Amino acid sequence: MTTSDFPAERELVIDRYVDAPRDLVWRCWTDPELLVKWFTPAPWKTRSASMDVRAGGSSMVVMESPEGELFPNPGIYLEVVEGEKLVFTDAYTEAWAPSEKPFMTGILTFADEGKGTRYRAVVRHWSVEDSKRHEEMGFHDGWGKATDQLEETAKSLAADA
Amino acid sequence: MTTSDFPAERELVIDRYVDAPRDLVWRCWTDPELLVKWFTPAPWKTRSASMDVRAGGSSMVVMESPEGELFPNPGIYLEVVEGEKLVFTDAYTEAWAPSEKPFMTGILTFADEGKGTRYRAVVRHWSVEDSKRHEEMGFHDGWGKATDQLEETAKSLAADA
Repeated sequence: MTTSDFPAERELVIDRYVDAPRDLVWRCWTDPELLVKWFTPAPWKTRSASMDVRAGGSSMVVMESPEGELFPNPGIYLEVVEGEKLVFTDAYTEAWAPSEKPFMTGILTFADEGKGTRYRAVVRHWSVEDSKRHEEMGFHDGWGKATDQLEETAKSLAADA
Repeated sequence: MTTSDFPAERELVIDRYVDAPRDLVWRCWTDPELLVKWFTPAPWKTRSASMDVRAGGSSMVVMESPEGELFPNPGIYLEVVEGEKLVFTDAYTEAWAPSEKPFMTGILTFADEGKGTRYRAVVRHWSVEDSKRHEEMGFHDGWGKATDQLEETAKSLAADA
């Protein structure tokens, strides 16, 4: 299914050029020590992350509000194509335990573009209401800021190399 | 996660000895020409089945009521361990398109037992309400009858061999 076949009103998309090589952008998404540096838009923070990056593997990312409140986000990976594609969802907390509220499925693709990366995040929902709510929660701003932080983190790795 | 860790009130289970070899019981679940023979408890029928049996592959089973009304059931496979384990859900219509209503996830396991098969179907739901509704729709009777039909079909294959 191409993106255009899926109902647009249940989908949110970020499509960006990221000024860092594809393998480093991929590492930022799949190495928990890197993910905590960029995943949550400031002033929120990512308190911890553990990730078993394989189809059926679990992930747990704990976000922290400016007031210090913790928000655990359990999920699993549905598809992992090394360096190219990463699909995850909160519909399961592990393989195969349905969560209490399936909210979203993220489909990330990474492609070479010049010296950098074409980074595309397609976020799909089970209902139009959830998609709308996600947008109103500040999806574009939040994922936009997070992607800035992702780019910065990936660039710092390139500088270290 | 073992079954006992998952909330029992969101889970329905069929655990049966099936008097046919494991590879034949597996074939009945994974060959569309066989599945149509047993999948839907009489007097309902299975009108057609198409199945791409691999993780991320789609399936479409069309059931037919005694009045001739057709009920298409799209879903996907989440995990396939040849001859041993089959996991599927209606939460996606294909990889990775969330359906309009995620209702259930089926986790089937097949194990040798004597000359037959220990067949276990664990069906999990996202909500207690859905699990209850599924039970009230006649889950145990329906899956029980379907399992009788499955056994009969698998046995007929053994007789042919």
